Amino acid sequence: MSKPCIVFQSDFGISTGLPASMTAVAAKVDPELRLYDLCHEVRQFDIRMGGSILASTLPYWPDGTVFVSVVDPGVGTARKSVVAKVKNGSYVVTPDNGTLSELYDDIVEVREIDETVNRLPGSDNHHTFHGRDVYAYTAARLASGQITYEQVGPSYEKDALVRFAAPEAYVKGGVCYGEVTGAHDHFGNVGISIPNEMIWSIGIHAGDQCVVTISKDGETLYEKQMLFHHSFGWVPVGDPILNECSNDYVELSLNQDSFCEKEMPELLKAYDLSAYKVKVAPVK
Amino acid sequence: MSKPCIVFQSDFGISTGLPASMTAVAAKVDPELRLYDLCHEVRQFDIRMGGSILASTLPYWPDGTVFVSVVDPGVGTARKSVVAKVKNGSYVVTPDNGTLSELYDDIVEVREIDETVNRLPGSDNHHTFHGRDVYAYTAARLASGQITYEQVGPSYEKDALVRFAAPEAYVKGGVCYGEVTGAHDHFGNVGISIPNEMIWSIGIHAGDQCVVTISKDGETLYEKQMLFHHSFGWVPVGDPILNECSNDYVELSLNQDSFCEKEMPELLKAYDLSAYKVKVAPVK
Amino acid sequence: MSKPCIVFQSDFGISTGLPASMTAVAAKVDPELRLYDLCHEVRQFDIRMGGSILASTLPYWPDGTVFVSVVDPGVGTARKSVVAKVKNGSYVVTPDNGTLSELYDDIVEVREIDETVNRLPGSDNHHTFHGRDVYAYTAARLASGQITYEQVGPSYEKDALVRFAAPEAYVKGGVCYGEVTGAHDHFGNVGISIPNEMIWSIGIHAGDQCVVTISKDGETLYEKQMLFHHSFGWVPVGDPILNECSNDYVELSLNQDSFCEKEMPELLKAYDLSAYKVKVAPVK
Repeated sequence: MSKPCIVFQSDFGISTGLPASMTAVAAKVDPELRLYDLCHEVRQFDIRMGGSILASTLPYWPDGTVFVSVVDPGVGTARKSVVAKVKNGSYVVTPDNGTLSELYDDIVEVREIDETVNRLPGSDNHHTFHGRDVYAYTAARLASGQITYEQVGPSYEKDALVRFAAPEAYVKGGVCYGEVTGAHDHFGNVGISIPNEMIWSIGIHAGDQCVVTISKDGETLYEKQMLFHHSFGWVPVGDPILNECSNDYVELSLNQDSFCEKEMPELLKAYDLSAYKVKVAPVK
Repeated sequence: MSKPCIVFQSDFGISTGLPASMTAVAAKVDPELRLYDLCHEVRQFDIRMGGSILASTLPYWPDGTVFVSVVDPGVGTARKSVVAKVKNGSYVVTPDNGTLSELYDDIVEVREIDETVNRLPGSDNHHTFHGRDVYAYTAARLASGQITYEQVGPSYEKDALVRFAAPEAYVKGGVCYGEVTGAHDHFGNVGISIPNEMIWSIGIHAGDQCVVTISKDGETLYEKQMLFHHSFGWVPVGDPILNECSNDYVELSLNQDSFCEKEMPELLKAYDLSAYKVKVAPVK
Repeated sequence: MSKPCIVFQSDFGISTGLPASMTAVAAKVDPELRLYDLCHEVRQFDIRMGGSILASTLPYWPDGTVFVSVVDPGVGTARKSVVAKVKNGSYVVTPDNGTLSELYDDIVEVREIDETVNRLPGSDNHHTFHGRDVYAYTAARLASGQITYEQVGPSYEKDALVRFAAPEAYVKGGVCYGEVTGAHDHFGNVGISIPNEMIWSIGIHAGDQCVVTISKDGETLYEKQMLFHHSFGWVPVGDPILNECSNDYVELSLNQDSFCEKEMPELLKAYDLSAYKVKVAPVK
C-alpha cells in the first residue's frame, strides 16, 4: 500500500531554496512519501489567500493527505502551531493564525504541536523556519506512521482556532449580495462570495444579462450590465462577464484580459477583500 | 513495472492552486503514477508558446508518457477536447485549438474526449476548469490503465485538428530566410525557424561572421553583423551573437543580457511572431 | 531499497520547458529515481546565489542525493564540467565556475565529466544545454547505478576548482565585522556573513539593542540602532530588526516588509555582494 501524499504550500516564493528545504526534510524522513507542491507564491503574509487556496484544493487530493501550509508572519513569536484533522482523514499542519478559517466546518479534531519533541534534531536554535524544522518534519513523521496523531501533541480546542469571519452572501428582494473573495487569480479574475446556485435562484441563468455593482464604505466603485454565462469565452475579447466559476462561486472576468487590473486595480493591494461588497441584480 | 509519467503544462501561473489541482486529481486516481510539471507559466492564452514548449520537450520524456497541455482561451465554449497519440506511444490531452501544430507530423491517431463519461464525478456544473475536471482525470485514467485509448471517445480526423501554419525556412541565392519563433526565453534569446544545418549549408560555420536582418511588412527593424558560434559565451558580455541552439535551430542572443529586451522589445508583446521575418547572409 | 533523489537547480526560469527537460532525461534513464527541484529562479548568471542556495539546503536532503546545479554563463566554452563528492555521500554535478565555493570544505573528491561517453545519445551537436544533455544524463546514470563515480571521468584536483573568496566575519574590539551575503530573499531580508554565535560572543543577546552599519568603499550607506531577536515578528510592522536566521547567520529584516527594497535597493543589482561591509556593535 502506498504512503500518503504530503502537499506543501507557503509564501516563501520560488526564487529561494526555502520550499525545497521542506521537501528535503520530508524526503529524508521517509523516501516512500509522495511529495508535491501546492503553491509557494501565496502573496507574502496573505493568510487569507493561503487559506483559500488550501480549502479550494484539499478535496481534490487523496483522503489522508498531509498538508503543510506556512504563511506565517508570526513565526518565532507566541502563536501556536497545530495539526488539524479534517473529515476525509487528511491533516493540515500550520500555524494557528487564521489559515484554517475556510476549512473550519470540516475540522474534526485539532492538536497543538509539541515542539519539544516534534522538531528536526539540531534545530533548537532556529526560530525563523518552522516550516522546515517543525512543520515538514512533523508532517513527514505523521504521514510515514513514525508518530501517531496523538503524538503530535496535546489536544487543542477547535473553538480556540484563530478564525476570520466567513464571507457573507445572501438574497434580499430578488438581488444577490456578497463580497470580493479573491483578486490574485493569474488571469485577473475577481472571485465573489456568491454561489452559482444563488444567482440561479433569483432567476438569472447562463445566457442572461445582469447588473454587477461593487462598492466600498457605501460608495459605488464599479457598476456595469454584463452577460452571465458558463465561462469567459462567451463574450468578445476584452468584454466583462460574470462567470460560473469551477469552485461553484461566481467570478468577474474580462475575456482574455485582466478584470482586476483594468477595472478594479485597488483590489490588488488589499489584504482584507471583505470590505468590497458586490451586488448582482437582474436587468429591470 | 512502473506506471507512466503524466506531465502537466498550462498558462495557469504558479501563484494559484490551479496547477496543483490537476496533480491532485491524478494522484487520487492512481497513487503509483509519476506526476511532473512541464511549465505553468506559458504566457496567458499563448497557444503557440504552449505548443512549442510541448513539441520541443516531448522527445526527452519516456515513451508512453501522457501529457496534459491546457492553454485554453476557449474553455467552456464549443471547442473540442482531444487525446492525440504520437509515434513513440506518448499521448497529449489538450483542447483542439492549435496546440498540436508543431507535433502534427508525429501524430498517429486522434480521439475526441467523450466528456459525458470521462469527467471527474461531481463536476458536471463546472465549465471553466476542464484541465482539472476532464483533462487531468482522463489522462490519469488512461495512464493507469483504467480506460483504454479507445474508451477516451470517438475517433477524430487528424486533418480536422486546428493547425497554425508551420514557420517557413528556406535558402535562396546563398541566403537563409526564416521567421521568429520564440521571444519568451528567460534569458531574452530570440528563436528563429532556421535549422543550424541550413546555416551550415550556405557555408557559414561556427566562428564565422554573418549578417542578420529582421523585418516586418517589408520594413527592416534590425540589421547587424555578428559572430555565428556554438553558444553565446563566445562573444564579449553584451555583444550579439547567432547561436546554434540545442533545439537544432539558431537563436539570437546577447552574451549575458537580453537580446529581446535590448534589441527587439516589440517581440515581447506579439502573439503571432511569424510576421517577423529573419534573413541570415554571409558577409560579402 | 529506494533509489537516490536527484535535485535540480538552475537559472533557467520557470516560464520555459528547460527545467523540465532535465527532469525528463532523468525520468527516462530510470523510472525509479525520485526527482525534485531545488530552485530554477536563481538570478541569471548569478553563480554565487546558486552556490549559496545549494550549500544551505544540501544538508537537509538524504545522504547520497545527486544534485544538478546549472548556473552556467560559460556553457559551450572551455569551462570544465565536474562531479564533486561531498562528505555525506552526496554528489554535485555542475560546471566548475565557482558554484562549489561554499561547499569546498565538505568536498572529498572531484571528477571531471568525460563528455565523450557521458552525454545523451544524439546530442553531439548541442552546445548550449549541457544541463540536459550532460549533467542530467550523467546525474541520472550515476544515481541509478548505471555508471560508478569513477566512470564519470578522470580525477580532478580539488585545488583546481574555481573558488570565490569566503565571506569574512570577525570580532575586533567587541564589535562584529562581516559582509552582505544575500539580497534576493523573497521577503527582502539581507543575509550577513556574521554567525549568530559571533553576535552572542560580544554580549548581544535576543532582546538587546544593537547598532548596524553598512558601508562600501569606506562610505557609510546605512546606520541604525535596532532590536536583535529570534525573528522579525518581535518589532512593529515596518520596523528594522537584526534576526537570528535559521541558517545560523544573522539577517537584516523589516517586519512584514522588504529591508532590501526600502533601505538598500542597490543590493538588488549587485552580483558581488562582498563589497558591502557590515558592522554590528553594542549600544554604548
